Amino acid sequence: MSATGNTTETSSVAELGLRVKAASRVLATASTEQKNAALVAAAELLVARSESILRANEIDVARAESEGVSATVVDRLRLTPARIESMASGLRQVAGLPDPVGEVLDGWVRPNGLKIRRVRVPLGVVAIIYENRPNVTSDAAGLCLKSGNAAFLRGSSGAIDSNIEIASVLREAIASAGLPADSVVLVEDTSRDAAVEFMQQRGSIDCLIPRGGPSLIRSILDNATVPFVIDGDGNCHVYVHADADLEMASRIIVNAKMQRPSVCNAAETLLVNADVAGEFLPMAAAALEGVELLVDEKALAILPGATPASDEDWSTEFLDLRLAVKVVGSIDEAIDHIARYSSGHSEAIITKSLEAAERFTTEVDAAAVLVNASTRFVDGEEFGFGAEIGISTQKLHARGPMGLRELTCAKYIVNGTGQTRG
Amino acid sequence: MSATGNTTETSSVAELGLRVKAASRVLATASTEQKNAALVAAAELLVARSESILRANEIDVARAESEGVSATVVDRLRLTPARIESMASGLRQVAGLPDPVGEVLDGWVRPNGLKIRRVRVPLGVVAIIYENRPNVTSDAAGLCLKSGNAAFLRGSSGAIDSNIEIASVLREAIASAGLPADSVVLVEDTSRDAAVEFMQQRGSIDCLIPRGGPSLIRSILDNATVPFVIDGDGNCHVYVHADADLEMASRIIVNAKMQRPSVCNAAETLLVNADVAGEFLPMAAAALEGVELLVDEKALAILPGATPASDEDWSTEFLDLRLAVKVVGSIDEAIDHIARYSSGHSEAIITKSLEAAERFTTEVDAAAVLVNASTRFVDGEEFGFGAEIGISTQKLHARGPMGLRELTCAKYIVNGTGQTRG
Repeated sequence: MSATGNTTETSSVAELGLRVKAASRVLATASTEQKNAALVAAAELLVARSESILRANEIDVARAESEGVSATVVDRLRLTPARIESMASGLRQVAGLPDPVGEVLDGWVRPNGLKIRRVRVPLGVVAIIYENRPNVTSDAAGLCLKSGNAAFLRGSSGAIDSNIEIASVLREAIASAGLPADSVVLVEDTSRDAAVEFMQQRGSIDCLIPRGGPSLIRSILDNATVPFVIDGDGNCHVYVHADADLEMASRIIVNAKMQRPSVCNAAETLLVNADVAGEFLPMAAAALEGVELLVDEKALAILPGATPASDEDWSTEFLDLRLAVKVVGSIDEAIDHIARYSSGHSEAIITKSLEAAERFTTEVDAAAVLVNASTRFVDGEEFGFGAEIGISTQKLHARGPMGLRELTCAKYIVNGTGQTRG
Repeated sequence: MSATGNTTETSSVAELGLRVKAASRVLATASTEQKNAALVAAAELLVARSESILRANEIDVARAESEGVSATVVDRLRLTPARIESMASGLRQVAGLPDPVGEVLDGWVRPNGLKIRRVRVPLGVVAIIYENRPNVTSDAAGLCLKSGNAAFLRGSSGAIDSNIEIASVLREAIASAGLPADSVVLVEDTSRDAAVEFMQQRGSIDCLIPRGGPSLIRSILDNATVPFVIDGDGNCHVYVHADADLEMASRIIVNAKMQRPSVCNAAETLLVNADVAGEFLPMAAAALEGVELLVDEKALAILPGATPASDEDWSTEFLDLRLAVKVVGSIDEAIDHIARYSSGHSEAIITKSLEAAERFTTEVDAAAVLVNASTRFVDGEEFGFGAEIGISTQKLHARGPMGLRELTCAKYIVNGTGQTRG
């Protein structure tokens, strides 16, 4: 392994943490030019080293296949020249985004003359723990680098050969651009013990972001002692108000459910006001062809062929061509249903009523509340962030799509002329 | 116990959580007028009920005394008519502060016409776990209420009788102002099991803020599954640069160390540039009369009577009239020392050099970095926040003094005209 290689086989997680922390101090004050140069160098080297990355990936893919892993998982794991080019173009795109570091958030002068500014600074060390996709290694490292953070990465065992090779290429490119190779450090030990140790590196990790399913989230809740941001489930609702444009409502529920059912901002439940249910539900059912509707009693009376919903369906994130459907008597009932079952991700109302829109956006508690638009718009790209490290469903620190800005925090800078406290 | 009383004896922590969460939905959309009316009503009722509060407090004080608790702790626990008046005036002051809820943080229009706004909203349920001071019950509840949050409180067993009485008075006053009594819920079970259960109420708690010492913080790290903000230690440094006004430097270190040694923003280590150490240290030592200086070898050569510092002293938060002193060869050495030992609270440089000030404020990683001012200014009151719920030494969510703004989060509101994603 080269001098800029990961060389992590012999280091403990804690030792790696100290290395990445030391690098974070350098990155914190690196200029935008330097960081962009490193990103572009990384993009170029990824492409130049495609062959060795693909060779490493072949090992992961062969192992997955020999273990009888599902075709979907193998597909997520598999790299191709086009996928490597897409990783590279992601890095180039991040190089083109504005640097969030240094932005003055606000500032004021105190009666005693102290001048206080709140300035955006990197978090320091951002840790990412993730599942099979090897492109996360490059995507996450790029976002961290641009926002002045060192990236401390822990991928899954299934993608370990790919991840080691990608991390090694990134490190070499970053070092060639004059920034520390340890700006990206991958933990090569993929044991469960190492994962738990990783989640407890309070001496080095400033923020942990998990990218994975419920069992990973559960492990973070049980074991992590470092601060974390949860990228959680999306049990998203679309509520069709009595005073809605029903053609629009139909287009929106079709888009929210069907355009990409497997993602967190897809709709899972359709709530329809009783006044328009008789007209709307047959329209919607026709437009939602191919989607299994799981309906409450009132909806069943309108759509006699549909499947009756079970209690569990209201809280299920199907991530599939299934949609729970409920008829509600009022906006209050819709808001109450959402308060009870929502995961706080994205909630939409379709209405022409200003009052209903105002009530819904004020009273519904979610990262994003939409009026007359598909829930599918709630992501970093669609919000204009250029890139996204996840979508937070917690309220602390970041809520909703997380771009470069959400990978920063603030520092107070106080300028005085000798003031002392009386 | 009255209808608005806490009535928590028979409820589990989880049940209490659901009650406080239900109240938080009402509070989230309460008007500023309503919240202020509740705060003023609470202030009035605290004073009107002084006798019953003092009676309850007598029980706590007597128990503490019979258990042989130290005089300092008993003093913290003891309420007087003046202390109750001070709690009431705190609530009136919070009523007078601007309401952070509803502030539009930013907003933009996407090429497809979607209008996106980021709006400040309450966190929801803010949980506070705290030690002996019963005034925290009222102070924390007031800040939560003003920022539209329900307060879920868990005080110590030592102050339980006082806390029950204060919470009951607050609940009655809040209900009399037309807001839910459950806007303030105190957990009466002061067992360790109940504390752990409290830290794990993910179904109800949006943010947990501990107010207490290292053992409480450790318990949060080990047990909490809800998001939290740590109000941690302050190992604060004052660095006297070669190009400093030494009279100013002396005034500032005296203030930073001596004005109130027991608080987190007091200075614990003095770093002095070697070029000025010979002149400055004798001056400073004289001005710091009564402070025990724990000095490195170079400083010992200048102050031969002082105590040699041990390695441990550099990382100790003395909270006392003790100060570690080290002579450094350069600003780099000062910054490195701070990077190694700082707890990330407040760090100050005394200098006339623009370049040194710029380097120090850019390179030192702390919640607040000060130039030519005492570290003692880093708190909510001195920053102009009007009140403070704590000082965060973590980077996620809030960093530095936490006022009303830090008890909020953001929600995206997206207005469309029927947009669907392509």
